[in-house]
Amino acid sequence: MALLEAEAIPALSRSPPHLSTSYLSTSTIVALCVFFTLLCACIVIGHLLEENRWANESITALVLGLCSGMVVLLVTKFHSTKLLIFSENLFFLYLLPPIIFNAGFQVKKKQFFKNFTTILLFGIFGTVISFCIISVGAFLLIGKTGIASLSIEDYLAIGAILSATDSVCTLQVLSQDETPLLYSIVFGEGVVNDATSIVLFNSVQTLEFSKLNAVTALKLLGTFLYLFFTSTALGIAVGLISAYIIKTLYFGRHSTDREVALMMLMAYLSYMVAELLNLSGILTIFFCGIVMSHYTWHNVTGSSRITTKHSFATISFIAETFIFLYVGMDALDIDKWKTSKASAGTSVALSSALLALVLIGRAAFVFPIANITNCIKTIGSCKIEFRSQFIIWWAGLMRGAVTIALTYNRFQKSNDTTSQECALMITSTIIVVLFSTLVFGSVTKLMIEAVLLRHPKPPVSDLTNISDDLRLLFLENGDPSDQGNNNQRFTRQSSLSLLICYPTTTVHYLWRKFDDKFMRPVFGGTGFTRVVHGSSSGEVEEIS
Amino acid sequence: MALLEAEAIPALSRSPPHLSTSYLSTSTIVALCVFFTLLCACIVIGHLLEENRWANESITALVLGLCSGMVVLLVTKFHSTKLLIFSENLFFLYLLPPIIFNAGFQVKKKQFFKNFTTILLFGIFGTVISFCIISVGAFLLIGKTGIASLSIEDYLAIGAILSATDSVCTLQVLSQDETPLLYSIVFGEGVVNDATSIVLFNSVQTLEFSKLNAVTALKLLGTFLYLFFTSTALGIAVGLISAYIIKTLYFGRHSTDREVALMMLMAYLSYMVAELLNLSGILTIFFCGIVMSHYTWHNVTGSSRITTKHSFATISFIAETFIFLYVGMDALDIDKWKTSKASAGTSVALSSALLALVLIGRAAFVFPIANITNCIKTIGSCKIEFRSQFIIWWAGLMRGAVTIALTYNRFQKSNDTTSQECALMITSTIIVVLFSTLVFGSVTKLMIEAVLLRHPKPPVSDLTNISDDLRLLFLENGDPSDQGNNNQRFTRQSSLSLLICYPTTTVHYLWRKFDDKFMRPVFGGTGFTRVVHGSSSGEVEEIS
Repeated sequence: MALLEAEAIPALSRSPPHLSTSYLSTSTIVALCVFFTLLCACIVIGHLLEENRWANESITALVLGLCSGMVVLLVTKFHSTKLLIFSENLFFLYLLPPIIFNAGFQVKKKQFFKNFTTILLFGIFGTVISFCIISVGAFLLIGKTGIASLSIEDYLAIGAILSATDSVCTLQVLSQDETPLLYSIVFGEGVVNDATSIVLFNSVQTLEFSKLNAVTALKLLGTFLYLFFTSTALGIAVGLISAYIIKTLYFGRHSTDREVALMMLMAYLSYMVAELLNLSGILTIFFCGIVMSHYTWHNVTGSSRITTKHSFATISFIAETFIFLYVGMDALDIDKWKTSKASAGTSVALSSALLALVLIGRAAFVFPIANITNCIKTIGSCKIEFRSQFIIWWAGLMRGAVTIALTYNRFQKSNDTTSQECALMITSTIIVVLFSTLVFGSVTKLMIEAVLLRHPKPPVSDLTNISDDLRLLFLENGDPSDQGNNNQRFTRQSSLSLLICYPTTTVHYLWRKFDDKFMRPVFGGTGFTRVVHGSSSGEVEEIS
Repeated sequence: MALLEAEAIPALSRSPPHLSTSYLSTSTIVALCVFFTLLCACIVIGHLLEENRWANESITALVLGLCSGMVVLLVTKFHSTKLLIFSENLFFLYLLPPIIFNAGFQVKKKQFFKNFTTILLFGIFGTVISFCIISVGAFLLIGKTGIASLSIEDYLAIGAILSATDSVCTLQVLSQDETPLLYSIVFGEGVVNDATSIVLFNSVQTLEFSKLNAVTALKLLGTFLYLFFTSTALGIAVGLISAYIIKTLYFGRHSTDREVALMMLMAYLSYMVAELLNLSGILTIFFCGIVMSHYTWHNVTGSSRITTKHSFATISFIAETFIFLYVGMDALDIDKWKTSKASAGTSVALSSALLALVLIGRAAFVFPIANITNCIKTIGSCKIEFRSQFIIWWAGLMRGAVTIALTYNRFQKSNDTTSQECALMITSTIIVVLFSTLVFGSVTKLMIEAVLLRHPKPPVSDLTNISDDLRLLFLENGDPSDQGNNNQRFTRQSSLSLLICYPTTTVHYLWRKFDDKFMRPVFGGTGFTRVVHGSSSGEVEEIS
């Protein structure tokens, strides 16, 4: 079969021969039916449990997946639980891109870029630190459990695999309006972390580690930086091209559908081109999403804006639910558990060790990095308080689909050669994913509410005032004719001191000026939108 | 690979080893990149050629597909042209359902049901007549060309395959507002024809034709009627369930995305369940679309309405373009042409014969059925004039993706056993599809404009008045207390005579009464929509 590699369930695959629609295999249809029914159930149950303090959509999907895996196990009499084989292609080609694109498309750009340095520190350096600690820890601990056949590459892969966090659970609880700083850091770190851990994983797979020395580390760094910058540039380029095409050709005149189709296709194309050039598709499509929401989105008709905003969110939502369902069902695959041949004790010991490494590896960078940024920052409200640090730490404890996908990629090269150790690594990772998502995930809502509500946030910062000051100053600078000399000197002095004190804000302000003057006239954007007859702009909420 | 079965292109599949992202195969990515680039190109070129008299979107896609097939042929030095293998699964599982669902979702229901009997006559009886003529004709003609190895089943399959029309080209030209009768007949016939020919094809595949007698014919009819009614009922049931769920749970309160996701998933689920029960998924999803647009669509928030309307149309548009692109690229697959081993003369002769059968088979039912309906109908404006008959005939001459998919299904069981005759049948069908789409398709716009413009339509019918009369009459009947006896008797008489004279209108009126009284209070619909704060209903255009 095509998209979903189904395995026939003997009990169900016999169709009455007199009416068989011969062009579709029954096992495929059964698998698709089950999955779509479960997806619908997830949505309805998720809606009903909206007010529940313990559940959320991902946990619902995971539990439903586990339950249906159990049912399949019982129906087939413990013969096979594979309704679907976990396919990395399905995950990396069709499920991950819409999720990441939507993340870029819906991100509050102002907040994201204001905390850009902090996000990069957490997302890149933090992930690398976590990668190192987990790799070294795994090397030391797993050796003691008697598993000897793993190579250095395997340990490094484990480090990369377990560094990939899944902050969906936390993001569902945090409010973007009440705690903008915390939300943007957790959200941004999640995206950058995904990209970083996948790039790390790929680097580990391709570099030679026969002699581990400084040159290899430098190569790793070089590869990483190369991937980061080229991928970002590609994403921005594709986004700008889409904006330019839609602005120039003015599609809305004829058809809303063409605009929406072109946006979807070009976003997906950016991912594919990045993968073709062996760059990081995730970073590319993320930045493509940001650029599209900043320029392209403003060039289309009102209907297209509503449609793109909601349909991207819907597709991302379905993909996310599907992944959790998938992971849940896949966890009960009995063959893997048989192959691993490990006693319950070994499994639990190994999983606990990995989980402990995850906890330590995350704590080892969240609190130091947060305190370092606090020292650098001068404005009080931008500092990350201890309770925020705790939530950031907590948000990154869950492990999800990226972890599963990378584990399969590393430890299940082909079905025949799966050794005992590899199977054990897969099952242990599954235990870590299930435990962290179910246990940590269900406590998240309660905990965050407790931490945040008992200590209400201080009032919103006065950054807007500073921004106003800057605008005033720069405007005065730009138009000096009607200003006295004294005034001007004073102005220059303040702008310089402001630039030193609030570098991010200043960069942001300068970017806005550049954007208004050069980018928007070419690529469109707020203020350069055509007035479309019949579209009510009140319906369209601002994304930016 | 997963969704698209790519074949590695030797020249492109070598990726630099130092940076290879190991989790995706390069051939898949190359294929996806090419296809998405071509899709974007199709949209842009289609937009630029909007005003062109010869081109339309499907022809653009087909030609682009042919060109890129040619490029692949040259790049690989005539080694392989298969960037993608035409996969029936891909077509029937992922491309056809959204197209048919969107057709049901966007159909003008009033027009569609007003001409329901005519549509069914054309779609079912017409297709069956065409099926018989083409089968018999193929049996008589192909025997003469020296091809002897085809069985009776093969000839019947050819009949079913070549009865599947593709009226996309014509529908792009016809205007739903200017010629509502013509549009609804062509559109409705297209959908019913798809379903009928696929059901015929499946019946042919499964029934035993060792002894061709009256019992077999009756069985065929029985199977057909069973499939038709159960499939329709299933589609209506799923649509009503979705309406009920969304109305009762009131999803919009929390999330627009959930509403949209549930509508998408349940629509797709209806198709899958129908296929699982060996019914006709096409009919099911079509009626599911109709019910969803009549009930479910009115229960969701304003944003969801815009989103669903446009996103369904967009997905359908992409799927349609993709199919034509696919068919174009697939046509140049050199292996098939090699296998057929036929001289150019034989190919041309066979294709011409099939094309002639298509022309005759269609003429044989369009004009008789149109004249029969004209005799039955009493209102002048509802009669199908000769120039409309001509356009209906013309609209069904093009052959498209369904034809290709069914041909592959029948004549390419597996790559090894493809005999010479089967390969010849495949290539001949491809020639018929290409010729009819490119030649007939490019003339369509000019021809329809010529036929319709030179003979402007008569003014719109007075059917609305009749409907008003009926409403008045029935209302008076339902509330007899304030009516005199004489009046009432007169009323009853007229309503009875009206029922006899205009059965469709009366049925429609009675349905509206039933709908308003019993269905809408339970399943929602116009007039029972909640007022959603912040949504401007002016933005939402009525579908019904």
